Amino acid sequence: MPSIDKPNTDAYNLATERGMALLETAATQVEAWLDQWPGWDLLPKHLASAGRYGVLGGGKRLRPSLVLAACEACGGNRTDAMPAAAALELVHCFSLVHDDLPALDDDALRRGRPTLHVHAGEPMAILAGDLLLTQAFQVLGSANWPSDVRAELMRMLADGTVQMVAGQVYDTLGGLPDTIDPIEQLRLVHNCKTGALIKSAVLMGAKVAQANEDTMQVLTHYGDAIGLMFQVVDDLLDVTQSEAHIGKAVGKDAAKGRPNWPDVLGTEASGLEVNRLLQLAVESIEPLQANGRALHDLALTMAVRTR
Amino acid sequence: MPSIDKPNTDAYNLATERGMALLETAATQVEAWLDQWPGWDLLPKHLASAGRYGVLGGGKRLRPSLVLAACEACGGNRTDAMPAAAALELVHCFSLVHDDLPALDDDALRRGRPTLHVHAGEPMAILAGDLLLTQAFQVLGSANWPSDVRAELMRMLADGTVQMVAGQVYDTLGGLPDTIDPIEQLRLVHNCKTGALIKSAVLMGAKVAQANEDTMQVLTHYGDAIGLMFQVVDDLLDVTQSEAHIGKAVGKDAAKGRPNWPDVLGTEASGLEVNRLLQLAVESIEPLQANGRALHDLALTMAVRTR
Repeated sequence: MPSIDKPNTDAYNLATERGMALLETAATQVEAWLDQWPGWDLLPKHLASAGRYGVLGGGKRLRPSLVLAACEACGGNRTDAMPAAAALELVHCFSLVHDDLPALDDDALRRGRPTLHVHAGEPMAILAGDLLLTQAFQVLGSANWPSDVRAELMRMLADGTVQMVAGQVYDTLGGLPDTIDPIEQLRLVHNCKTGALIKSAVLMGAKVAQANEDTMQVLTHYGDAIGLMFQVVDDLLDVTQSEAHIGKAVGKDAAKGRPNWPDVLGTEASGLEVNRLLQLAVESIEPLQANGRALHDLALTMAVRTR
Repeated sequence: MPSIDKPNTDAYNLATERGMALLETAATQVEAWLDQWPGWDLLPKHLASAGRYGVLGGGKRLRPSLVLAACEACGGNRTDAMPAAAALELVHCFSLVHDDLPALDDDALRRGRPTLHVHAGEPMAILAGDLLLTQAFQVLGSANWPSDVRAELMRMLADGTVQMVAGQVYDTLGGLPDTIDPIEQLRLVHNCKTGALIKSAVLMGAKVAQANEDTMQVLTHYGDAIGLMFQVVDDLLDVTQSEAHIGKAVGKDAAKGRPNWPDVLGTEASGLEVNRLLQLAVESIEPLQANGRALHDLALTMAVRTR
């Protein structure tokens, strides 16, 4: 898999079709895993219900897909990686629940449904967000892996989540270093806000398969590229798509004066940046050869997504 | 140390003096550890500043004291246990920052200072709370312990924190099972809200010292007893002390119609319950003999605290 296929060729379209299928399969599997997870039974009913509302019932499940694909790319077993996939999704959903709060993004719509604070009230949304974040570590902590894998995955998840919180602070409260230019600033915000957890997903999947250091290095480059690419695509969708289409509020970046790629680079150059990052991602996993196919397909699919 | 000494005897007073000294030493040590922790340097400056405001500068540091005392009681080294002590305090402070938010307890005063949302705004307080919670796992994940100890401590902390969140939900949003009587309800709320993390502190300290199963069992009973006792004392202080004295709002339970021990049992019977739980705690650690002295002294000190 030496380079990406040209858009709209048969090979390209086949790859994105395979990528869509990977996302759908992972979504079904992680939804079922989280739905049946016994951790909910330990909780007050209304808290369990709010937590489940926050994490079940939709979402692209991109991070779980990456966990599973990375684990398989490194020779690991998909079933073994399920707790890592679930933990990543728990953290991602915690961040959505808190970011949607009135004091932060004040969003009423998420995945085409009322956000958790609209559905269950603000006090419950704060506490259920705290719950989902903690449950992610609970899931990793009781996974059936060697203890060094368990410990390492928890460390990786914590590091990625701290960066994500830092990115959210930059994005909503500013404070970016003014010694770097606007493009570098944007890269910093988005590497933290979105990239860190996407990269953690890739590396955690690989770690479940006990990948060697060389492979971890390869996947670090891949994770860096797709993490940033995901956010550039997201920013483009925010200016080009309708709210009904993507199931959440749009045009928010402009409305809130937040830095975003189309504003800083222009729409066309942002599209070129997506292509550049995709190329980087695809090239980075060449050493994995045929084992990297799922990661290749997911990268292509992330680049062309429309919601 | 077969039983507790009678209040106001010389032995009793000496024990509580030793307990106070243990708290002070642990407070100084955990404050210094957290202050110098390199994790702050990875963050945007205003986020680091808010996080430090939330966790530094005061507090009884009871949980760190218990971690250190339990570790030493099991033959472990105090220095080795510092990351566990710091992690417990990070989780405790995260819970204070979020509980103080306008949508929850809406408190303006904590440890005699403005609460974090008053000091740095609500968006920052939500995100800094999320940060402190995640940093607790970051601290454990990079501690210099065997990987099985690291993994086990993260699991224990996650389990204790999930229970704490459940307790906070019961306390602020109700939903207690109505199949149990008011005293059982209160015990359930408080075992979750306060007891779980206090017990985790004791058990995590012991685990750093790689205590055996029998000792873990002994300390489970001790942790259960002092965890609940702490909350009964807290409820009593809420009705008997002034705001200026304890550095946070008082009379809140009554004002918010929340279940609390003086309301359910009466003030006098609540005092007797403190004594009963203290006796239970002290008896439970008899098997540790002289090694249990610090835990004994801390229990006595927790029972007679006035703030």
